[in-house]
Amino acid sequence: MVSDERLSSLHLGTKNLYMSTMVKEFNDYRTRMNEVILSKDNLVIKRLWNLDTNTYAEGALDVKTKELLGLVASMVLRCDDCIKYHLGKSHELGVSTEQMYEVFAVANIVGGTIVIPHTRRAAEYWEELVNDKN
Amino acid sequence: MVSDERLSSLHLGTKNLYMSTMVKEFNDYRTRMNEVILSKDNLVIKRLWNLDTNTYAEGALDVKTKELLGLVASMVLRCDDCIKYHLGKSHELGVSTEQMYEVFAVANIVGGTIVIPHTRRAAEYWEELVNDKN
Amino acid sequence: MVSDERLSSLHLGTKNLYMSTMVKEFNDYRTRMNEVILSKDNLVIKRLWNLDTNTYAEGALDVKTKELLGLVASMVLRCDDCIKYHLGKSHELGVSTEQMYEVFAVANIVGGTIVIPHTRRAAEYWEELVNDKN
Amino acid sequence: MVSDERLSSLHLGTKNLYMSTMVKEFNDYRTRMNEVILSKDNLVIKRLWNLDTNTYAEGALDVKTKELLGLVASMVLRCDDCIKYHLGKSHELGVSTEQMYEVFAVANIVGGTIVIPHTRRAAEYWEELVNDKN
Amino acid sequence: MVSDERLSSLHLGTKNLYMSTMVKEFNDYRTRMNEVILSKDNLVIKRLWNLDTNTYAEGALDVKTKELLGLVASMVLRCDDCIKYHLGKSHELGVSTEQMYEVFAVANIVGGTIVIPHTRRAAEYWEELVNDKN
Amino acid sequence: MVSDERLSSLHLGTKNLYMSTMVKEFNDYRTRMNEVILSKDNLVIKRLWNLDTNTYAEGALDVKTKELLGLVASMVLRCDDCIKYHLGKSHELGVSTEQMYEVFAVANIVGGTIVIPHTRRAAEYWEELVNDKN
Repeated sequence: MVSDERLSSLHLGTKNLYMSTMVKEFNDYRTRMNEVILSKDNLVIKRLWNLDTNTYAEGALDVKTKELLGLVASMVLRCDDCIKYHLGKSHELGVSTEQMYEVFAVANIVGGTIVIPHTRRAAEYWEELVNDKN
Repeated sequence: MVSDERLSSLHLGTKNLYMSTMVKEFNDYRTRMNEVILSKDNLVIKRLWNLDTNTYAEGALDVKTKELLGLVASMVLRCDDCIKYHLGKSHELGVSTEQMYEVFAVANIVGGTIVIPHTRRAAEYWEELVNDKN
Repeated sequence: MVSDERLSSLHLGTKNLYMSTMVKEFNDYRTRMNEVILSKDNLVIKRLWNLDTNTYAEGALDVKTKELLGLVASMVLRCDDCIKYHLGKSHELGVSTEQMYEVFAVANIVGGTIVIPHTRRAAEYWEELVNDKN
Repeated sequence: MVSDERLSSLHLGTKNLYMSTMVKEFNDYRTRMNEVILSKDNLVIKRLWNLDTNTYAEGALDVKTKELLGLVASMVLRCDDCIKYHLGKSHELGVSTEQMYEVFAVANIVGGTIVIPHTRRAAEYWEELVNDKN
Repeated sequence: MVSDERLSSLHLGTKNLYMSTMVKEFNDYRTRMNEVILSKDNLVIKRLWNLDTNTYAEGALDVKTKELLGLVASMVLRCDDCIKYHLGKSHELGVSTEQMYEVFAVANIVGGTIVIPHTRRAAEYWEELVNDKN
Repeated sequence: MVSDERLSSLHLGTKNLYMSTMVKEFNDYRTRMNEVILSKDNLVIKRLWNLDTNTYAEGALDVKTKELLGLVASMVLRCDDCIKYHLGKSHELGVSTEQMYEVFAVANIVGGTIVIPHTRRAAEYWEELVNDKN
C-alpha cells in the first residue's frame, strides 16, 4: 500500500511534494472516473449524486457540522475514499486539527479498533492537507 | 415488532402514554443489563464504557455536535439502541426537529435506503421524546 | 421476538389469520411512520425516497430482476424490513418459491451464516405471502 | 423488544421461569423455520448448513475455542440470533462466565460501542443459560 | 492506489494495453493465492469454494440473473475483488453496459454513497473488459 | 494492488526477500502513523489504544486464544491491516498453519464468500511470516 518511492520521499523531507501528489492523485482519479460513470446517463445515479451535494448544503445545521457528520459516517463505515473527500472539504472549511481528532475519537469509540487503520490513512491525508496550505 | 396493544393505543389517541412507556422501557432495560454486565468486573469493558462517556464531553467541538456525530455514526451502522440513546441525549441538549432530520438525511444518503427502517424507528422515538416534553 | 400469542396461533392451525396480521402490521407501521417522516419536509429525504421508487422501474433490466437485486442486497446487508418490502413486491410480480430460494442461496453464500437468521424470518414472511394468496 | 409481561416476571422474582421461556422460544422458532427452509430442497442452502456444522468440529483447534471464535465473529457482526446459538453451545461446553466476558471484551474493543446493545442481550441470555442449569 | 505509471499509460492512449494488465493482474493473483490456500487441505474451505461455484449454476433463475445477484451483493458489501470477479463473469455472459449501470444504480441506492468509490473502480474495470473485447 | 515489481520478485524466486519487505512495510507505516496520531494528544484515542493492548493480555482465556479471537473478528469485519497485525502476533505465539486455516474456515463460513479476498491476502502474509522464520 505504501510504495518504496513514497517511503523514501517521506524520509528525504520532501513531504510537501509527496503530499500534494497524494491529494492530486485522489482528486484526478475521482474526476476521471466520475466522468466515465456520468457519461453512461444512468438517471438514478445522476440524481443520487446531485442529492449528495444538496445533503451538505447550509440548513438548520451549518456546513461545517454537516461535513463532520459525513466524515464520521464515512469513518465508521470504513470508506477511505469517502473519508478523503470529507477531509478535503473539512480542511477548506477551517476545521482545526484538534477538532478533527475529536471526530476521529468518536469514530474509533463507536466503530472500534477496526477503525484504527482507516484513522492512520486519514491522519496521513490530513497532514498532507495541512502541510500543503502552509 | 409492533404489538396489537401498541397499535391500538396509537389509534385511541393515547399516544403520550404509550410514548413514555417506550422511552421508559428502553432506559429500564439498559440500566438493568448494564448492572448485570458491570457486576462481572471485566476491566476492559468497564474502561471502554468510561471512555465512551469521555468521548462526548465538551472539547474543541461542543457537546451538541458530538452527540450528533455519535447519532449519525449509530444510524449508518444501523444500531437502533445506540440511535435511541443519542436521540435522548440530543433532545436534552435542545436539538430541533429540523436539525434532527438533517442528521437523518446525511445518514440516509451516506448509508443508503437500508437506513430507512432505522429512520422510521428513530422518527417514532423522536416523536415520543418531543411529545413527552410538552 | 415471537410472542406467546403468535406461537399459539401457529399451533392452533390459524396460520393464515396470523400471517395476514404479520404482513398487515408491517405495512401499517411502514405507512404510518413514512407519513411522520415526510410531514417534516426534509427535501433530501423526500428526493431520496422518490429516487428509490425510480430505481426499480422497468429499464434495460426487467422489473422482476430489479426486485430480486434489491432483495439480495437487503439480505446480505441484513435489513429485515427491507427484505420484507422486496419479498412483498417479488410476490406480486410472480416470483416462484424455487426462484426465491435461489436468491436466498446467493445471499447465504455471499454473506455467510450470519444471513441465516434473516433467511428464517424471510422464509416465514414468504410463507405468509404465499399462503395469503391461496 | 421487552414486553411488559417479561419485565414484570423479572421484577416478581420469577426469573428462572422467564429465562427458560427465552431459551425455549429461541430454539423452537429456530427449529420450526429451519424445517420450513430445508423442506424446499435448495441444495446450496442444505450443503452450506452441513458445512456450518463441520466448521465447529474438533480439529487442530479444540471445540471450545472454535465455538468462541464463532461467538466473537457473531458479536462483531452484531447478529443476535447467531450470538444466542453460540452462547448455548459455549455453555454446554463449560465456558465460564469470566471467560465469556473476556470474549465480550474482545468483541467490544474490536467492534466498538455499537456492540454494547448486543452485549446486553448476550449477557441477558447468558444469565438465563447459567441460571437454568442450577 | 493509482500509480504514476498507470496514470501516464492512460494519458498516452495506451489504454487497452494497460487494461489487459489490470484484468490479468487480478486473475493471476487470484489463481496464485487460491493455489496456496487449497494446498493446505482445509476441508471446510474447499467445500465452501465448491459450493460457491454451484450457487451460480443455471437453476430456476438463469445464470445471468444469478451473476447480477452476486454482483449487487458484492457491491453493497463493498468487496472490490468480488465485484471484479462478477464483472468478468457478467461480461462473458453478455451483460450490456446499460444493464450493468442499472445494477450499479441499485447498489448505490440500497448501499448509499459509500458505494460510490467502489462504483468508480467497478466502472474502470468494466471499461477494461469492454475495451479488451473489441 | 500487486505491483509489477512484486509479481516479478515472486516469479524470480526472491520470495523471502520480497516477503520481508511486505511485513516490514506494514510495520513501518503502522509505527510512523501511530506516532503522528499519538503526537496530537487526543486523550480518548490514547486510552482506547492502551485498552486495546490490555484486551489481549493473559486472563481467564490464554493469550493465544485471545489473538485468534481478535483475528477472526478482524477477518469477518474484513480489515486487512487488523488481520495482518493479529497474524503477526499469532505467529509469534506459535500458532500452526493448520490451526490458522481453521480460523480462516470459521471466518469464511460466518462471513461468507466476501471474506475470500481477505483470506487470500491473509494467506499471502502468513506465508511470508512462516517463510521469514525459516
